[in-house]
Amino acid sequence: MTETAAVSRFDVIFDVEARNTAKFRNDITVHLRGLHPTTVELPTDEGPKHGGDGTAPYSLAYFASALTACIMTQLRAFSRRLDIPLTTIGVNTRLHWEAQQRGNGPYENAPVAFTMDTDLGGGASTADKQRLIRAAAKGCFVEQSLKPGIVRHRLKAGEDWIAV
Amino acid sequence: MTETAAVSRFDVIFDVEARNTAKFRNDITVHLRGLHPTTVELPTDEGPKHGGDGTAPYSLAYFASALTACIMTQLRAFSRRLDIPLTTIGVNTRLHWEAQQRGNGPYENAPVAFTMDTDLGGGASTADKQRLIRAAAKGCFVEQSLKPGIVRHRLKAGEDWIAV
Repeated sequence: MTETAAVSRFDVIFDVEARNTAKFRNDITVHLRGLHPTTVELPTDEGPKHGGDGTAPYSLAYFASALTACIMTQLRAFSRRLDIPLTTIGVNTRLHWEAQQRGNGPYENAPVAFTMDTDLGGGASTADKQRLIRAAAKGCFVEQSLKPGIVRHRLKAGEDWIAV
Repeated sequence: MTETAAVSRFDVIFDVEARNTAKFRNDITVHLRGLHPTTVELPTDEGPKHGGDGTAPYSLAYFASALTACIMTQLRAFSRRLDIPLTTIGVNTRLHWEAQQRGNGPYENAPVAFTMDTDLGGGASTADKQRLIRAAAKGCFVEQSLKPGIVRHRLKAGEDWIAV
């Protein structure tokens, strides 16, 4: 690679068509656009205790998977690009929001923290593992869409968890 | 309701356990914590053209559904609380990110815009529909976690789309 490697850019576009006719069931079709388009059905519902019929996952369950998987995908992709060996990836994520409500009015909410604890196999040094997680966070489309400071990454180093 | 309606607060917590042993398949279990816990399996994969095996949805497809459904769920919930009549909900969302890459290094990315076009049935006034969408946006856990200004809401009013 030369010192002035070419800079390229690309777009990632998803289109969603969604419909709700009653209660909390949402029928949702997601299209990935571009050279290799795909379409998937990803309906959501609330559970019976929240007024729904439990016919599909909660929307926030999709969000929780998306954030976690987005980081894991970039860890895998960038381990090759950065030449940092990587075998298994284990991640435990906790997503915590707080909501506030006055009387029976609509409530407002805010994220408290999304904590991601990552355990990387493969024998890379702790410094390289930290570097890999930082690169994955910068390349993760979901994390880059979130308010800064919400996601807190920790890395397993021996028996300890250290900040990244 | 009295003028000083009681303020209550509550937490929403999801825990994720995720594992990747090779390539881009991520096995992901999502737990909703709290009084009515549920667990769901939401694996992800990349498509064959992106180095994966296409065994599960893209992580960003989950994200796209989550954002859209989160708003729809709050539209439904808050229509009762605000006494704004609502029959059907139709939403078309476009999520657009841009990524930049130097040579073959890890890329960085940023969201360009997430545009949500909403069509609400039920005969409420345009002003009430706008009020309902604004309340849903404030109550949507996903939107409230995003960088301010990324999500742009429009409402169908007759044959036009108007800003919210």
